[in-house]
Amino acid sequence: MRQQHLLHPTLRDNPAEAEALSHRLMLRAGLIRQLSSGVYTYLPLGFKALRRIQDIVRQEMDAAGAQELLMPALHPSELWKESGRWDVYGPELMRLEDRNGREFALGATHEEVITTLVRDEIQSYKKLPVTLYQIQTKFRDERRPRFGLLRGREFLMKDAYSFDRSAEELDESYQRMYDAYTSIFTRIGLNFRAVEADSGAIGGTDTHEFMALADIGEDTIVHCPACKYAANIEKAAGVAPPLAKAANQFAAAEKVYTPNTTSIKQLSEFLQVSPQQIIKAIALKADGRPMLALLPGHRELNEIKLKAIIGATQVEMLSEDEIASELQSVPGFIGPNGLSHIPIIADQEVRGMTDAVIGMNERDYHLVHVDVSRDLPEFTYRDLRNAAEGDRCTRCGHELAFTKGIEVGHVFKLGTKYSEKLGALFSDEHGASMPMIMGCYGIGISRVLAAVIEQHADEQGIVWPHTIAPFAVHLLTVSMQDDTQRNVSEDIYHTLTRAGIEVLWDDREERAGVKFHDADLLGIPLRLTVGRKASEQIIECKERRSGKQYELNVLQLLAHCQSFYSTND
Amino acid sequence: MRQQHLLHPTLRDNPAEAEALSHRLMLRAGLIRQLSSGVYTYLPLGFKALRRIQDIVRQEMDAAGAQELLMPALHPSELWKESGRWDVYGPELMRLEDRNGREFALGATHEEVITTLVRDEIQSYKKLPVTLYQIQTKFRDERRPRFGLLRGREFLMKDAYSFDRSAEELDESYQRMYDAYTSIFTRIGLNFRAVEADSGAIGGTDTHEFMALADIGEDTIVHCPACKYAANIEKAAGVAPPLAKAANQFAAAEKVYTPNTTSIKQLSEFLQVSPQQIIKAIALKADGRPMLALLPGHRELNEIKLKAIIGATQVEMLSEDEIASELQSVPGFIGPNGLSHIPIIADQEVRGMTDAVIGMNERDYHLVHVDVSRDLPEFTYRDLRNAAEGDRCTRCGHELAFTKGIEVGHVFKLGTKYSEKLGALFSDEHGASMPMIMGCYGIGISRVLAAVIEQHADEQGIVWPHTIAPFAVHLLTVSMQDDTQRNVSEDIYHTLTRAGIEVLWDDREERAGVKFHDADLLGIPLRLTVGRKASEQIIECKERRSGKQYELNVLQLLAHCQSFYSTND
Repeated sequence: MRQQHLLHPTLRDNPAEAEALSHRLMLRAGLIRQLSSGVYTYLPLGFKALRRIQDIVRQEMDAAGAQELLMPALHPSELWKESGRWDVYGPELMRLEDRNGREFALGATHEEVITTLVRDEIQSYKKLPVTLYQIQTKFRDERRPRFGLLRGREFLMKDAYSFDRSAEELDESYQRMYDAYTSIFTRIGLNFRAVEADSGAIGGTDTHEFMALADIGEDTIVHCPACKYAANIEKAAGVAPPLAKAANQFAAAEKVYTPNTTSIKQLSEFLQVSPQQIIKAIALKADGRPMLALLPGHRELNEIKLKAIIGATQVEMLSEDEIASELQSVPGFIGPNGLSHIPIIADQEVRGMTDAVIGMNERDYHLVHVDVSRDLPEFTYRDLRNAAEGDRCTRCGHELAFTKGIEVGHVFKLGTKYSEKLGALFSDEHGASMPMIMGCYGIGISRVLAAVIEQHADEQGIVWPHTIAPFAVHLLTVSMQDDTQRNVSEDIYHTLTRAGIEVLWDDREERAGVKFHDADLLGIPLRLTVGRKASEQIIECKERRSGKQYELNVLQLLAHCQSFYSTND
Repeated sequence: MRQQHLLHPTLRDNPAEAEALSHRLMLRAGLIRQLSSGVYTYLPLGFKALRRIQDIVRQEMDAAGAQELLMPALHPSELWKESGRWDVYGPELMRLEDRNGREFALGATHEEVITTLVRDEIQSYKKLPVTLYQIQTKFRDERRPRFGLLRGREFLMKDAYSFDRSAEELDESYQRMYDAYTSIFTRIGLNFRAVEADSGAIGGTDTHEFMALADIGEDTIVHCPACKYAANIEKAAGVAPPLAKAANQFAAAEKVYTPNTTSIKQLSEFLQVSPQQIIKAIALKADGRPMLALLPGHRELNEIKLKAIIGATQVEMLSEDEIASELQSVPGFIGPNGLSHIPIIADQEVRGMTDAVIGMNERDYHLVHVDVSRDLPEFTYRDLRNAAEGDRCTRCGHELAFTKGIEVGHVFKLGTKYSEKLGALFSDEHGASMPMIMGCYGIGISRVLAAVIEQHADEQGIVWPHTIAPFAVHLLTVSMQDDTQRNVSEDIYHTLTRAGIEVLWDDREERAGVKFHDADLLGIPLRLTVGRKASEQIIECKERRSGKQYELNVLQLLAHCQSFYSTND
């Protein structure tokens, strides 16, 4: 393609609104433009890269035996009411009415549509198992769209759904998708990790997230450098190394005046004790009923773990009024004593604490020198907290590492949640009617594009992996006014193009500096510069990733490009 | 692909809800399923054919120099307000609010989005001309969705937009798209005709519709079998052959009592004159102002022609009350005499009529033996009517032919309507600021799929054109229980697949009759049946279109398939 008329509006300066590297570079290189918050147009170069990602996804899904179809974006509300999600999905689900006042959702995900389709079309075990997928636009009204394509409101997704006859068959379908995802992200050139994740409220049993490692990522990944353990922070388990015994472990508990110490920080400073000696009591409402969670002061409550433990779908903080009316207590001074009428769950690290500090449900007073086993009632102990720096792997004991990731894929065992609610049954070999066993599998196609750029860029611009670069070769003519340069360039352009190599030819009437600058920004893997030595049939080659530069004779070019791509795929 | 696990639910009977042939066959062959009125899921076989159409469209658009991008479906209402279409587009435009109460349209068309994009990114004549396209899902809340994919509410469309610097350059861009469309529809195997159409209220200057000929079509095409003239009925001009002179051409006009003759039919029967002797006077409101249109009684008013003549955007009938108050007349008895305070336009066929009948604006009376030039005031004469059977071509005089068509494509010169409203200006060679000159070009991708099936089917099912068939070869094993048949089939399957031929292998445990029946319904061009002669390495070939059947040795198969496709493309 000739660059002169290509719509690739590059920007000289970093756009102020773009925080994330990928967002900045995609705007600067003219890959995308924002139409509305979280809603983007893909310009020709961005769209070409997006298509290459789609092609790879399609090839691997087909190779894994999945069948492609295409479902609508307009979902009648009846479907979502049947699954029960119309009311619980919340404002992320975009809704509208048609001209006759019928309600529709804009598809945020397609479990309802696919499950009713398969329910209506498959009745016999003979037609199972089946895995179906689509590459389609999704709509989610994110509260806080940001980072360009990383968190948008209209985005491209590949979603797949498997229907199996048994848990073992689901295991196989799941593994096939897991393997396909591994191939996809490897081919795309992502540095990624598949991590255990929480199956949470969606009701499944097994789930992995595919995380592209990147500092901008909104997810924290916990992994063990020694064994293969890796999990999302929401799911990760860690064990703290044993604490040294407290100095005052045998002192008697004592009520002390601690005015205005409503935070762990204030209390820790006032009493001159470390936060880990303080027992934080968090008053919560789990599905509407009050409860108390206890953790060491330096730990973070993991709501997802808590929900799984108590089987709740919603957990929120009690308000000051509710703390007064339900617990007869005061925010900042809550403690377990006298609250035997509500459930109390303590993190396992609380067990055996001595010389600890805890609230007494009385304004401005705490109890100090607390020995948990001596001075407090019996609790249920569980893993309630986020894994933290310094924790050890629960499998091998090695210290855990923490890193940030972007969720680019998700594989999930749904089980029978949707098939039961929507009546997707099949008759088995013996004629018995059974619910189909489902899995669902997503890849954020447009998010992958951004994640790739987060990982493959430098000061000058994008450094495309070869497999998804919008063009294979960037041909740059230093001076289009020079007949020799122009003719040599034209020959090269046609020779490579005829050989099936996609070439972007910078044939613009621009200064050489502008062209080199743009070429680095666009990041096409191989750049061929036709300059002064064109008369000697010599052109300059530059590899974008390594920065390697060398001269080649025009006659060697085609072979060189072919071998460059065959060795770098 | 092995058919056993392919999701292609065939139906034995014609679904009651499907009127159109393509709709029936797409449901019966398991290509689509309805999710909601006018909203469909494409099942794997339907999606494969849809993708082949997309591929052809993409290839021809790229070859014509158009650049592909992808725009969002969510359009902020501000854009549509800026173009003025938010208020005039009506209930076909689907609308919704996001979580913050901001209004959005679901893209029914993308003039607003593309024009503001190009406005923001292109300032100089050096970057023009440019033609941009996308293949994307459109939403239009049709009042009456029907005929399956022929008129849906969510559908796949290719829309392209050109931006030029001069009218001459637009002519070139337009012609390139016209030629690309001709190639596309030819390759897809459609029997189509490009017809002149009305540019109507959109405000353009030149426009052609690409019509797939089919009885189910909602458009009437008028074409001349002698010269190349072809137009949509909305635009078509025809000339009636000269009338024989009326018998009473010299009689004096006379007022007669014609009780209860409010329709042409009643009046014609009462007076025993033919409808073409009656002058029909239609009282209208054009953009709110009353006017009168006169036509021979057997002709149909063409509102689109009328609008173009008087420059109105809306034309409706006057109500009985308005006829009384504005014209002091009575429905059924309206005539031009005494109405000089409103515009009167007569069809050119009214000129020179003699012995005619016309209303007198008086209940139950008409004037007969009217000589238009003698008895009526002067009118403006124009072509106001639909072309009709018997009309002659205005170019060559040959009798015109009438046929029905499905609009599958549309090319349109927009001019500066959007660029002026949305400020898409460029500076020309002399630094002057000029509005870009636009064209827009659409193909209804999903409608094309249905149109192909309307044209390519027989009693038994679909007869795919080779270029868009979901598979190239249908391999059918009569008995999967038979080891020889199964092994021979498996060999053929792998041989052809390895050679890059897409094979659907019916490996199901079904009766042969069911398999043959389904094969005819699915309509893959070449069927290879492995049956009893498998032990002799003989298989049976059947060509779906011609019905030709013959035996082949397994060793000849690959060459035969390749030559079948190279000669039938």
